[in-house]
This record gives sequence, C-alpha cells and structure tokens, in this order.
Amino acid sequence: MIAEEYKQMLGKKSVIRELSEYGTERAKEIGYEKVFDYSLGNPSVPVPQAFTDKLIELAASKNSAAVHGYSPSLGISSVREKIAASLNRRFGMDYEKEHIFMTSGAAGAIAHALRSVTKKGDEVMTFAPYFPEYNPYVNKTGAVLKIVPADTDGFQINFPEFEKMFSSKVMVVLINTPNNPSGIVYSTETIERLAAFLTEKEREFGHDIFLISDEPYREIVFKHVDAPYTAKYYHNTITCYSFSKSMSLPGERIGYLAVNPACKDAKLIVEMCGQISRGIGHNCPPSIIQLAVAEVVDLTADLSVYETNMNILYRALTGFGFSCVKPGGTFYMFPKAMEEDAGRFCSRALKYDLILVPADSFGCPGYFRIAYCIPTEKVERSLEAFRQLAQDYK
Amino acid sequence: MIAEEYKQMLGKKSVIRELSEYGTERAKEIGYEKVFDYSLGNPSVPVPQAFTDKLIELAASKNSAAVHGYSPSLGISSVREKIAASLNRRFGMDYEKEHIFMTSGAAGAIAHALRSVTKKGDEVMTFAPYFPEYNPYVNKTGAVLKIVPADTDGFQINFPEFEKMFSSKVMVVLINTPNNPSGIVYSTETIERLAAFLTEKEREFGHDIFLISDEPYREIVFKHVDAPYTAKYYHNTITCYSFSKSMSLPGERIGYLAVNPACKDAKLIVEMCGQISRGIGHNCPPSIIQLAVAEVVDLTADLSVYETNMNILYRALTGFGFSCVKPGGTFYMFPKAMEEDAGRFCSRALKYDLILVPADSFGCPGYFRIAYCIPTEKVERSLEAFRQLAQDYK
Repeated sequence: MIAEEYKQMLGKKSVIRELSEYGTERAKEIGYEKVFDYSLGNPSVPVPQAFTDKLIELAASKNSAAVHGYSPSLGISSVREKIAASLNRRFGMDYEKEHIFMTSGAAGAIAHALRSVTKKGDEVMTFAPYFPEYNPYVNKTGAVLKIVPADTDGFQINFPEFEKMFSSKVMVVLINTPNNPSGIVYSTETIERLAAFLTEKEREFGHDIFLISDEPYREIVFKHVDAPYTAKYYHNTITCYSFSKSMSLPGERIGYLAVNPACKDAKLIVEMCGQISRGIGHNCPPSIIQLAVAEVVDLTADLSVYETNMNILYRALTGFGFSCVKPGGTFYMFPKAMEEDAGRFCSRALKYDLILVPADSFGCPGYFRIAYCIPTEKVERSLEAFRQLAQDYK
Repeated sequence: MIAEEYKQMLGKKSVIRELSEYGTERAKEIGYEKVFDYSLGNPSVPVPQAFTDKLIELAASKNSAAVHGYSPSLGISSVREKIAASLNRRFGMDYEKEHIFMTSGAAGAIAHALRSVTKKGDEVMTFAPYFPEYNPYVNKTGAVLKIVPADTDGFQINFPEFEKMFSSKVMVVLINTPNNPSGIVYSTETIERLAAFLTEKEREFGHDIFLISDEPYREIVFKHVDAPYTAKYYHNTITCYSFSKSMSLPGERIGYLAVNPACKDAKLIVEMCGQISRGIGHNCPPSIIQLAVAEVVDLTADLSVYETNMNILYRALTGFGFSCVKPGGTFYMFPKAMEEDAGRFCSRALKYDLILVPADSFGCPGYFRIAYCIPTEKVERSLEAFRQLAQDYK
C-alpha cells in the first residue's frame, strides 16, 4: 500500500529537469562547448576562498566531536549569534540569536515558516511568476496556495488583482525578491504598499497576517538597484535565507529563518520551528557547514559575473527585438516568447542548441526563463543563436 | 495565528535534555571531572582519520561546483552506488543504486519511509522500550503509533502482546535493532519469527505490511553477538541507516534509506522519496558529506571503547545488585531501577552526581538508561557512585 499522493506526483516530470537532461545528452553528442544550456539555476562561480580555508581548518580540528557533533535543535548558538549580528550591521535590524533558526537552505526555512503560522485550510498568497516548488511546500502543510497573476509591465506586484483576491482566509503572503524567474527586485514602493495593505487587512480581519520573504538571491543585486530589506517594512515578517547562491553552496543545504523581532510571538515561532523539525525528520543543517559559514558570514562569492552576463544578454536580446524587463538581480532573465506558446518557442530554440525554460510552470505563460549562471564567453558565443532564433520570427 | 499544535509540543520538555542541561550546570559548579553524565547518546570517539582526510581533499578541490553543487534529489549517483555495493558485500544483498535514497540521518530516513507507505489513519506498531522521537515522526504523517509493551526478560519482542494487538490497520512495523535504549540486538530467532508472522498477516489481510528497520547502531555490535541483517529475512523491508554513530558524525546529518530489492515496488518507493522531500523542505543531505562518507563507506570510528565501557559497567552494576540484561551493542545499558518510580530513583542518583535517564518516556517504566559514550577512566571513577546508590536501597 504505497502512498498514492506521492506516486502521482511522479507522473508530473519537471520541465526544467527534462530540459537540463536533454542538454546533458546533447552535449555528449555535439560537445559541451556547443550547447548553450540556460536551464538550471546552479551557481557557476567558486565558493569564497575564506570559506574553503575555514572548512579545512574545522575538518582538521583535533576536537572532532565539537565540529561534527549534534547541533542544538535550533542551530548552533554561536552561529545564530553571528548571523543576527550580521543582519543588524547590514540592515539596521535588532535581531537577537533567539530570532534565528538554522535550516536546510531556503526550502527548509519556507517549510518551517509555513508550518509555524498556518493551519489546514488557510490560504497562502503568492505572485506570478513564482518558484513552482511553492506548490508542494504549501500543499503539504494543508494550506492552499493562491497565485496572483503577474504584473507583466514590470514584474512588481499586481496590486489590483491581489486586493481583489484577498480574503480573511489569507494568513500568509509569500514573496520572493530578488525574484526567480523574473530577475526583478521589489522596490521600496512595492514593499511599502504591500506592508500598508497587510497592516490594514490585519486591522480589518482582526488577526495576524504573516509575510514570508524568500530571499536566497538577496546578495545578487545589480548596481543602482533599489533593494529594500523586507522585514524593515512590515512587523510580521519571517525572512527565509539560503547561502546557496551567495556562497555557491547549493549542495550543502545551509540557510536560516529570521523572525522579525517586531513580529507577533517572534521568539516563540523560532522555538516552535524546533518542534516542527521533529515531525519532518529534519534536524538542523550540517554542523561543520554551520560553523564555516558563520565565520565568513559577511562574505560572498565573486558574484560580478552575473551582472556582466545580464548586461551582455539584455543589450543583445533587446537589440534582436525581444521584449524584456531589465533584471535588478539574481542570475535570471525573463523575456517574452516570440509566439504565444512559450513551450513551442523553447522547442524551436533547441534547433540552435539554446536551452530555455518556458514559464508556464512559473504561472506566467508566454514568457521564458534564461538562467545565465554560465561562463561569460559562452554567453557571448550564444548571442548568434538568439539572433537566428529571433530572425525566424521576423 | 501561530500553529497551536507545535506551540503545545513546546510544553513537553524532554527529560533527557533537562538532565543533560542539569549536568552541564553542575559541571560548572563542581568541575566537569566530578559529574558522571550518562544522559546523552553522543558518540565520544573521533571520526575516522580517513574520513577527515577525504573531507579535506574534497574541500580543497579546485572544482568547487562539483563538491558543493546541488545533489540530485535522490542523492549523488556515485554515492548511492558505493553504498549499495557495500551492503551487498557485507550482507550478501543485491541492492542496486536505485534502491538507495540519501537522507538527513536516520530521522530523515524514517520520515521518508513512513510517508512512502502509510496514509492517514493507518497504524504503525513499535516495541517498548522505543526511541521517543518515533512519536512525532509517526504522528505528523497522520498515522497512529501503537506501542507493544516490553519483553522485560530479554528485551527481544513481546510476541504474545504483539500478536494480540495486531490488526488489519497495521501497515508498518517499526523496529530498532541494536536498540536504543535497551542495548539489545534482535536475534535471528526474533527476526525470523517476526518475518513469519508478518508474511502470514499479509496473506490473511491481503495487503502489504512494511517493516521499517531503524539501524543507526548497526556497526556497534559486541563480540559473539548474533546480529542478523533484517532485510535478509523479510521481503518488504525498508532499512534506515545513519552514519552518526558508526563514524561519529551526528551533526552532519548523513544517512540513507535502503529498500530491499524484494520489496513491493522497491524502486518506485525510492523515487517517491524524492517527491516526499519536496513537501517537507528537505533536499538531500550535504553534498560534500555524501561524497566523503562514500569514499570510506566500509570504515567506522574506533568503536571498541563502547564494549570496554559496557563490560566494566555490567560487571560492576550486577555486582552491586542491579538487575540488567547484558547489552549486545550500542552504547546504552538498561538496568532496572531499585525502586518502582524510576524518576525518583534517578533523582536520588543525582546526589552522587550520577546523571541517569528514567525510562518512562521510552515506554518502559521502572527502568533507566545509561549512555556510556564517555571516557573509560570516567566510567571507572563512576563505579563508586553506583555502589553508594545501590547501598541506599539495601
């Protein structure tokens, strides 16, 4: 009697994974250099050397029990302290270590945050285009995910639709800024308007509404872009962070959840996260990785290549006639497909060995995602393929 | 509106944690050397040097994306292959890599195994004394945990009670051998009898019954002890393993689930585990730790100290009049308290700075647990305290 609900999930293969597998196969056929694989959001730059040095130093420690021993269920105390101090220094916040809960990446943070402030039947709202994994994250808590259609003019928030769809059943609004897949960063104006709206609705409905802010791309923000720290603007904010992108450590599953000190029951929520872990068989991210990131918490990998790649692509693609909102961060770009069916458009791109992801699964049909976390010389060599693809539609 | 179910869990503080905190405080008062803290099951021996060497080599690799990049959702392919080969070599099994799913320790393995083969309302049976975390693991899947009272003669399985309690609602039997807290290893006779019973019940009820075998202590088995590999004896076995104890790596959260190739839908269950992960925000154990353990998969830390400690304690305690079944493995021992209320007995032990855990939360009142993963010289110095404690009851 295997569990049908999970068996059925298997039927729905991820488009991104299928495309990436195709890219790998195609590379075997014609050579890796000739395939322009823009499918996967895998950081392409090395981890910071200081992180590597710290990791080796810890691994070599004579006191292996201190390095590899159990982490307390909320995370290693000194690590939580260093993260709180870093956030305070950088964003003018007043976190204490009791507001920080260590997680297995942003996925773990979102899973815990959702369970801490929803119950079965509650609604969670998010905004297209959105990360498709939000579906299982939310569904498995028993809450219901509602998707607000995209603001395709600027990929900020579509407030008219949002306000129309909002009901007293909404307990959580889930945002992702800088955004995967659009590459857009929510402006101060957007965050202020969202905060004002939620505050008003809290008053109207007489219950707390939590803002879960998913921020794994926080450190990948391009020059002169307005990138507010969400929690500064709304009291009931739970920030979900991952070191995956900023330190190029996606496989090490290290992140945290930071509950705004102004949040209702802030420290209690963190303690509850320790209980939530017990039910889902997650018990803290790896100790040695916690210790290593905490030592270099203000560092990032050299992320400049992403902005370089974005500028090259943005200039070229708009020149070829693509319509695209200029990204403010991340390593994604989100142009409009040149025909209505983005799936068909991306299939045609394969003719030029360009692997692009249609955005239907991001809740935004007619668009496609470019994950430009690849070497710059390859981005440059891919431009001719984009030119030819655009030419097909002239 | 924070989630009441998790808030309420906070009320119930873990006895083990409270005792261990007391031990830490007491050590500050009178000195670490004078407190005989037998409360926590934390491995006390160093990790294998070969693991450390491999970890450093990986961390120093120039190709940081290969070391720190995303693991595929079922685990790194080469790692799964090495684990399957090791199990086949050691236990005469025929696992393929498709039968192995990498997890965050045994906790992650059990969480996934339970979700893969139960649905809401199903019953999961386990045997006292049992690891209390089985309660949240099972409860949060929607299934119901049923505890079979202990066989206090030998801490094997109490078959008469088990058979009486067994119903058609039981989809999973969850065992832990070598056992925390009793230290007992289930004998071949026990496993054979269990397998025969489950096979008969499968026929009678016309549905599969899965045996989830939780085996984090598999490598800590003492000389001349019969320690069968469970999956060899029953087709529908899902083995849950952790490297926490065998390699002294509890903080690195690394383990796996191995589905017996003879199991119904064996490879499908592994694929489903990848889907289960999506809902609970767990995405594979850390990549670098997966890669490092796989390189030294047949090694363990030097575990001999545990048997040394056991022999010293067993001889002394039985000499002082304690009644105790001799452990066959782990680093636990499970004597009978010298008064009916084990809680009161353990409180009295504190007078001698002996920190012992009453076994009520293990579902076996009247007993206490000794976690003897501490230095041997300290074990020796603690004997006088045990002697005095026993003396109090003469």
